[in-house]
Amino acid sequence: MKLISFLKHGRSCIGAVHPVHATQFLEVFSCAQDDQCIIKFVTEIQLVQEAQSKFQQALENSTSAWQNIDEIVIQPVIPRPGKIICVGLNYADHAKEGGNAKPEYPSFFLRGHSSLVAHSEPMILSRVSDMFDFEAELAVVIGKRIRHATSSTALDAVAGYTCFNDGTFRDYQKRTAQWTIGKNFDGTGALGPFLVTPDEVPMGAIGLDILSRLNGEVMQHSNTRDMIWTVSDLIQILSECLTLEPGDVIATGTPSGVGYARKPQVFMRDGDTIEVVIEGIGTLSNPVRSEAVASIC
Amino acid sequence: MKLISFLKHGRSCIGAVHPVHATQFLEVFSCAQDDQCIIKFVTEIQLVQEAQSKFQQALENSTSAWQNIDEIVIQPVIPRPGKIICVGLNYADHAKEGGNAKPEYPSFFLRGHSSLVAHSEPMILSRVSDMFDFEAELAVVIGKRIRHATSSTALDAVAGYTCFNDGTFRDYQKRTAQWTIGKNFDGTGALGPFLVTPDEVPMGAIGLDILSRLNGEVMQHSNTRDMIWTVSDLIQILSECLTLEPGDVIATGTPSGVGYARKPQVFMRDGDTIEVVIEGIGTLSNPVRSEAVASIC
Repeated sequence: MKLISFLKHGRSCIGAVHPVHATQFLEVFSCAQDDQCIIKFVTEIQLVQEAQSKFQQALENSTSAWQNIDEIVIQPVIPRPGKIICVGLNYADHAKEGGNAKPEYPSFFLRGHSSLVAHSEPMILSRVSDMFDFEAELAVVIGKRIRHATSSTALDAVAGYTCFNDGTFRDYQKRTAQWTIGKNFDGTGALGPFLVTPDEVPMGAIGLDILSRLNGEVMQHSNTRDMIWTVSDLIQILSECLTLEPGDVIATGTPSGVGYARKPQVFMRDGDTIEVVIEGIGTLSNPVRSEAVASIC
Repeated sequence: MKLISFLKHGRSCIGAVHPVHATQFLEVFSCAQDDQCIIKFVTEIQLVQEAQSKFQQALENSTSAWQNIDEIVIQPVIPRPGKIICVGLNYADHAKEGGNAKPEYPSFFLRGHSSLVAHSEPMILSRVSDMFDFEAELAVVIGKRIRHATSSTALDAVAGYTCFNDGTFRDYQKRTAQWTIGKNFDGTGALGPFLVTPDEVPMGAIGLDILSRLNGEVMQHSNTRDMIWTVSDLIQILSECLTLEPGDVIATGTPSGVGYARKPQVFMRDGDTIEVVIEGIGTLSNPVRSEAVASIC
């Protein structure tokens, strides 16, 4: 299933997206306002089975209540992940374009949930930097608590996949050796639109085309098979150190073609539209707006 | 007031510590289980006034219900902060001992709440590293949402101060240029014991002695006036980039004397006791336990 998170009358709701008409969805579950509602849903086999049966009936019966995605306010797939763990330099070509050697261990950093925006919500420029760059990434959502994962258990912990745009202020990223602050500005990390369950994609989401488009022009284009560390590798490496918990997100790194490595450099401007497209996972599209305009809205 | 967070019968409770007998406290507030209960309490003037009046009566009336801290299970002051923002190299002498130049901008990184432990809870060694080091730090707890703070508004956002031990696996910290993974092992960040309200300390918590003791021996000893960036500076610098939210924690960096910079190097071992002591803020004491033993407990 492809699932969306949204709020309705103060409740967290989950919708399942129509397999052909991607602007239509069926509401399949809701919780009292809960930032992890979608995790509760996908990890309860009985809830999923009931939803699948309801979904199947709705597909067969054209009179049933499909709603339009454009009429709701989608949330980030997980509105407040416990941890958002990002991987730098996980595509060899991107490491190379930034002047970095092919790494021997992943460069991890964290984002706070206060940096997240949903699909179609504006990504926000800053008053203090004009070097706002895009990074298309495959994101993994954890559905099961796991520590010391092995190659045979790692993928069992995956609730699903989604798109991530790891929006970065390059000058702040490079102000010290720690990238964190350039990756944590408000409104810079877009997560969505769908949580795609693992049965919909190849095992470990390997072999999927991934690209970013700025105002319709392709800027990055690669394939998840070019990741240095696979999803399974990352879960094993991380869980050697820490517990991955339901709702945690791992952003698996970006391929080459980012704006700051281009000649001439390209940065995002007010009025731009930036998209992350991953084969079988979805299209994450966000307008770019200046901080002042966004504050007024 | 000096406040503690603890759980009782599934409720989050707040206690105010006796000003003379620091092992005694009075229960002053409780919420349905809520990881930010203490923030709700300190930011509601009416609740604080009622508690202060109850506290004053209890001090004057020896028959009232003081409880013993040893009989409850203290939680980290904020059990699940939205963000835990750490500052590296904020004491010039510590930057120097690690071979780093005096920095021009703070080195920020984030910790996840899954790395936190409370006062008196074990800090956990790892199966994969024997280089577990201590770092005594002053931690600031945010009580008010703030963005683009100025020198005149920054300290208004502070709910209080506490002690932090930024436990670090030095080899993992140095595996790449990003320190994050070495700072995010489970059970390595001790936070507590008390939330000390700003009225109890000098403005901005400047001029407080800070030290760490390993098995009773002083390892680090400095004063918060030696911080390169003050608490007010850090709130201004951070909030230029992101929104600080109630319950967020800023760990303000550690002075010289850490284990890995000593000759010979000193790392923590199973059975050790590590303490962080900050003048007027409290003593954070944690036993150190191996991962295996801790899992069995």
